[in-house]
Amino acid sequence: MTKPSGMELSELVERYDDRLDTDAYADVDASANGLQVGPEEADVERVAFAVDAGRATIEDAVDADADALVVHHGLSWGGIERVTGTEYERIAPLVENDLALYVSHLPLDGHQELGNAAGIAELLDLDDRDPFGTVGGEYIGQRGRVDEPFESDELTTGLLSQLDTDGEDVRAMTFGPDEIEDIAIVTGSGVDWLEDAAAAGADALITGEGKQKAYHLARELEINVFLAGHYATETFGVRSLQELAEEWGLETTFIDHPTGL
Amino acid sequence: MTKPSGMELSELVERYDDRLDTDAYADVDASANGLQVGPEEADVERVAFAVDAGRATIEDAVDADADALVVHHGLSWGGIERVTGTEYERIAPLVENDLALYVSHLPLDGHQELGNAAGIAELLDLDDRDPFGTVGGEYIGQRGRVDEPFESDELTTGLLSQLDTDGEDVRAMTFGPDEIEDIAIVTGSGVDWLEDAAAAGADALITGEGKQKAYHLARELEINVFLAGHYATETFGVRSLQELAEEWGLETTFIDHPTGL
Amino acid sequence: MTKPSGMELSELVERYDDRLDTDAYADVDASANGLQVGPEEADVERVAFAVDAGRATIEDAVDADADALVVHHGLSWGGIERVTGTEYERIAPLVENDLALYVSHLPLDGHQELGNAAGIAELLDLDDRDPFGTVGGEYIGQRGRVDEPFESDELTTGLLSQLDTDGEDVRAMTFGPDEIEDIAIVTGSGVDWLEDAAAAGADALITGEGKQKAYHLARELEINVFLAGHYATETFGVRSLQELAEEWGLETTFIDHPTGL
Amino acid sequence: MTKPSGMELSELVERYDDRLDTDAYADVDASANGLQVGPEEADVERVAFAVDAGRATIEDAVDADADALVVHHGLSWGGIERVTGTEYERIAPLVENDLALYVSHLPLDGHQELGNAAGIAELLDLDDRDPFGTVGGEYIGQRGRVDEPFESDELTTGLLSQLDTDGEDVRAMTFGPDEIEDIAIVTGSGVDWLEDAAAAGADALITGEGKQKAYHLARELEINVFLAGHYATETFGVRSLQELAEEWGLETTFIDHPTGL
Amino acid sequence: MTKPSGMELSELVERYDDRLDTDAYADVDASANGLQVGPEEADVERVAFAVDAGRATIEDAVDADADALVVHHGLSWGGIERVTGTEYERIAPLVENDLALYVSHLPLDGHQELGNAAGIAELLDLDDRDPFGTVGGEYIGQRGRVDEPFESDELTTGLLSQLDTDGEDVRAMTFGPDEIEDIAIVTGSGVDWLEDAAAAGADALITGEGKQKAYHLARELEINVFLAGHYATETFGVRSLQELAEEWGLETTFIDHPTGL
Amino acid sequence: MTKPSGMELSELVERYDDRLDTDAYADVDASANGLQVGPEEADVERVAFAVDAGRATIEDAVDADADALVVHHGLSWGGIERVTGTEYERIAPLVENDLALYVSHLPLDGHQELGNAAGIAELLDLDDRDPFGTVGGEYIGQRGRVDEPFESDELTTGLLSQLDTDGEDVRAMTFGPDEIEDIAIVTGSGVDWLEDAAAAGADALITGEGKQKAYHLARELEINVFLAGHYATETFGVRSLQELAEEWGLETTFIDHPTGL
Repeated sequence: MTKPSGMELSELVERYDDRLDTDAYADVDASANGLQVGPEEADVERVAFAVDAGRATIEDAVDADADALVVHHGLSWGGIERVTGTEYERIAPLVENDLALYVSHLPLDGHQELGNAAGIAELLDLDDRDPFGTVGGEYIGQRGRVDEPFESDELTTGLLSQLDTDGEDVRAMTFGPDEIEDIAIVTGSGVDWLEDAAAAGADALITGEGKQKAYHLARELEINVFLAGHYATETFGVRSLQELAEEWGLETTFIDHPTGL
Repeated sequence: MTKPSGMELSELVERYDDRLDTDAYADVDASANGLQVGPEEADVERVAFAVDAGRATIEDAVDADADALVVHHGLSWGGIERVTGTEYERIAPLVENDLALYVSHLPLDGHQELGNAAGIAELLDLDDRDPFGTVGGEYIGQRGRVDEPFESDELTTGLLSQLDTDGEDVRAMTFGPDEIEDIAIVTGSGVDWLEDAAAAGADALITGEGKQKAYHLARELEINVFLAGHYATETFGVRSLQELAEEWGLETTFIDHPTGL
Repeated sequence: MTKPSGMELSELVERYDDRLDTDAYADVDASANGLQVGPEEADVERVAFAVDAGRATIEDAVDADADALVVHHGLSWGGIERVTGTEYERIAPLVENDLALYVSHLPLDGHQELGNAAGIAELLDLDDRDPFGTVGGEYIGQRGRVDEPFESDELTTGLLSQLDTDGEDVRAMTFGPDEIEDIAIVTGSGVDWLEDAAAAGADALITGEGKQKAYHLARELEINVFLAGHYATETFGVRSLQELAEEWGLETTFIDHPTGL
Repeated sequence: MTKPSGMELSELVERYDDRLDTDAYADVDASANGLQVGPEEADVERVAFAVDAGRATIEDAVDADADALVVHHGLSWGGIERVTGTEYERIAPLVENDLALYVSHLPLDGHQELGNAAGIAELLDLDDRDPFGTVGGEYIGQRGRVDEPFESDELTTGLLSQLDTDGEDVRAMTFGPDEIEDIAIVTGSGVDWLEDAAAAGADALITGEGKQKAYHLARELEINVFLAGHYATETFGVRSLQELAEEWGLETTFIDHPTGL
Repeated sequence: MTKPSGMELSELVERYDDRLDTDAYADVDASANGLQVGPEEADVERVAFAVDAGRATIEDAVDADADALVVHHGLSWGGIERVTGTEYERIAPLVENDLALYVSHLPLDGHQELGNAAGIAELLDLDDRDPFGTVGGEYIGQRGRVDEPFESDELTTGLLSQLDTDGEDVRAMTFGPDEIEDIAIVTGSGVDWLEDAAAAGADALITGEGKQKAYHLARELEINVFLAGHYATETFGVRSLQELAEEWGLETTFIDHPTGL
Repeated sequence: MTKPSGMELSELVERYDDRLDTDAYADVDASANGLQVGPEEADVERVAFAVDAGRATIEDAVDADADALVVHHGLSWGGIERVTGTEYERIAPLVENDLALYVSHLPLDGHQELGNAAGIAELLDLDDRDPFGTVGGEYIGQRGRVDEPFESDELTTGLLSQLDTDGEDVRAMTFGPDEIEDIAIVTGSGVDWLEDAAAAGADALITGEGKQKAYHLARELEINVFLAGHYATETFGVRSLQELAEEWGLETTFIDHPTGL
């Protein structure tokens, strides 16, 4: 039995950047997408995937003997001021264990096939899907219709059963139509796109975290909002990237570390 | 029986602005604090108090026959671009019913006696209280110590029993010391002050809403975080203003409209 | 006899926005063009037209029983910080009388057929008209030639006789050629385009208000300047919109409130 | 016969800068106040004074054989991009004739004894004078009271008879009290301080130029506005500087070039 | 014998602006490129060329009886705040001697035929030349290959023998390959493009001035850097413009004033 | 024999920050001064000192078995976008070898006793020393007088003999007085303070690197400029910090890596 061939780190980075159109998001995303931590040259045989680059997931990736960790939420948001404190405790194990960190934030939210919103749309079996919700002109979500309208309870139950909510509820603010057919999705923290969803004629917005201001706005816009958890709505993108890595012949592992948020 | 004497609206505004030091927050708060909607001259006999200036609370204030509505979250955050859509539906009933809107956002978060954080500190009977957490140099929270350390369960239960969480849980992320003695409070959406709380040596931060990034940060800073709800942690300030109004001889009513967020 | 059919407010707004290309000016005009005050749904049968959204014109529109008021100068210039003082006194009668406010500032200055500059060009019977003068790349004026050159006295007299100057003079600064053939027009406050007019080879710039700095600049650029009044040069655009409304079967009224400025 | 004593140019500049507190306005005025054009070393015997540094006034100063020209409106407003076109035609005669240019814009508007507003306050014999109107925290006007209230006609006539309006009218917008006792003054283009004047309780604002928006604002604030001309209201400051120069033993000449604006 | 025909100044300016694509650099270059000092109308018979618009070169141009001086480094970098001190001493002789100043900074660095980098590429006989190095999207350098690789000593000696270094050494930081084949050039102060050069695969960057930070960066990027002097690397562009002027029938003179920097 | 006592890293950082007034420079320096790389807790026994945090000096510090490296030029200038490429190659050996990085840029330039300019002033035995040269209001240099004036040759020779110029010349631009008595010092890249030095009446500015624009400016300001090398003028500050460390009982080593720039 032969061991998997592996790949140059730079090759892996280039493949992901191409597929995710990382460059298009360069000016609109605070996250430094692409390779965030890693040397010029390295071989990658095993890749770990996680939602967040916390110390816990980094240590799990080290334990899994991974050469690269691919995450949605990385370390550099507008530049790392100092490699001290919690930054040090995250970067040190990466460096000490030759573990490269690849990050894809908004490009992975918005990718219409591989992305987080696309993953939920797939789960709900939405048709007539279109890109939805923009930051600086780039898409970060998706929208579509179901054949058979949901009632809000059904949708809550469905999301709860299929998402990794870490025991937390899916919170529904059911201010919109009883029958939910047209659904907009912005994963993570998406209530800022509530007015866009209403203006577009959606019956509901599915997102992760809420914000206080969303309550009255949803009520007045007469739209349903489902808060299914930031973590729970954002595992899809990195899992898609995991599938790609497997297609490319790499060993992979998924590090599930739900936050309940 | 004589009816309550009432007060000029301008007099009420001036008293609140003085007590809350509204001017000090003029450059650091996006909210246009002070009188947000109302005529030059009006008499105020009855004042309604609420956390949010949503259409629902505005309509309740109209039903209560109030002359002024005092809230923590108003309508103008950096200017009202257009009086249309949901803005129209909020402003129209104010104007049509001669209901003035007074707003105090960060000044009411940070006031060391009347404020939201102060209210929770009072509830928990904190000693040695100090101002905590700043925006542009102005305080927005409070910090203090308890005589008898809490365990995290006790604190969760205590908050849950005393706050208006609308049936939602208080979510505890118990990454800090088992015995909680030194507590920092930033109500509403306060996890951005997590590092300040840890640097100050607090055992726990109590706030309202969470954000995904708070999970790993709290874990790595080894600090406890209690998410008790944005609404639930921010009723204290407006209730303090209600007490003041009563002292000043005005009729008052509190409009409780929890959001569960 | 049947009463006029009327129109949905949203339909009226959409028609005007389309004709005036409101979107193109979104980033270059401080004025929030389009619907500035009004509910989601309303019927419009009667429309009032005025240059300025002052309390006086708003009250006249109310007296005229109008459902919408269309103006060149609205209320929101970079956002309404507070609905208090003079803002309250303007917005309150709009809201209390179900009078919607539609605003078109630079789009109406620059429209090459319906606009203010186009109106004056029409009055002077200019040929070979071209767009003139830009803000952020969008046109705000017009330029053309006369068959028979004017002398400056003729032009002054002509403007005075045909414009609504409220008894004020048309002020001519006759530093350019005696025979005026090539005329640039930027209505309102247009002397900032004096150098553009000279560079383009115009013999004269017609505008509304002056500014002190224009005197020596005109003198040194050897160009004629005619200050015909801000109000007087800006009635054309709203009158064009009035004609459109009549074509669309609506009742209309023009509220003439010259300012003499 | 002894030749006039004269003075070092640098000495003259320093004296004016000291008296006018030029440094205090460095960050709030677009005008580069102080010496704008001139060599390191020069002797000054004769000084010309004018409101504007137009080519006409510069040429008159050359004809008057002046060594320095002191003006209110200079050439550098945020930097001279190129010394070409009209800039060249203004700067060339300065350089070719060893004529230095000293400029004082906002410092000369706001100086409480030497300034433009102070000059008009003196003319009207105002008592209880206070600084009025600010730009970035620095004063630019003055306010005071008259013993014997004016009627608006009297004030118009008085201003007209005493100011150099070049045959233009003083335009009065008489929306305020019939009896005018408390008067705010911001010379030049001062209608942006209309709300401050009303808030301060002034019965009238005297300024130079108008702007269209001032009409309805004055009407609604119920304040009188007198537009006495930008040039006409701004000769006082430079005349005060002329008096100083004479006290210092220099020959002086005033170049009167009214603009009628 | 007939004297040279001469040319309108405006014609000369237009020809240079066209050839150099001055407009394309308008928003990316602090230098006000094009005519910086000069009247609306003038005849040009003799043109002087220099790298810097210092007082010394301006005086030499005056002595040479030139009508225009064409330089790479002009006087206006984001606007001339005041025409005083050293600015006065540079502008006064221009004005007093009817000597116009034409400036081309980045357009002349980046022009692929006439420019500074192109001049050095020509000197080194580079093939396969491509534009290299950008500011705001506009090119400022050039890159190409040599048939026969240089050793670093050869290149140092070659540059030293052919450039006008005023007796200063060419400083080589030889951290790259021994054989230098692929060469990137950004004249003047170009070490900020070191990473671009390395990323593009160049064996060496040739530039003028160094900066301290370049040493370790070059060492770590393993690229050779040649510091041949800011002046010495930037005579090529103005000499190309001199050749053009001669083709156009103008008399020319080159003012060589090396700085050794 | 007892081993040296050592110190907590946090204690070392606090002592340096206090002595250097690091906080005062927080908003004026792009460099993130203070601890740039390092864990929350560590013991420091041996400290290395260098001018630049290049890979070479970092590796030398590792070889010297240092626990901390103190430098003038660090790694974070407005934030580290990515820990990749040369950044990775610098940060990795720090992290892998438990080597903390402490940085002091402008605070160490400007400190009036410990700083770089102070070191050169000491070398030249300057009297009547005053702070000189500011960035955002904070000092970065020093100025003083010598008893016995230098001739420029003497000063050149003196600097050359006492500074670590790596074989490079000290370049003198001798455009000022022959006798040099009043000397301003801004180490590193200080020619931007040439006009301040001249205005203050200095006979010479001593700095490190030059820039092309300095030549004509110095010539016209008639001031002498000595370019003694960026590296060579900036070893003093870190050597002062080394002395402090020794006083505090730590082992130290100086890593001399001149750049010749």
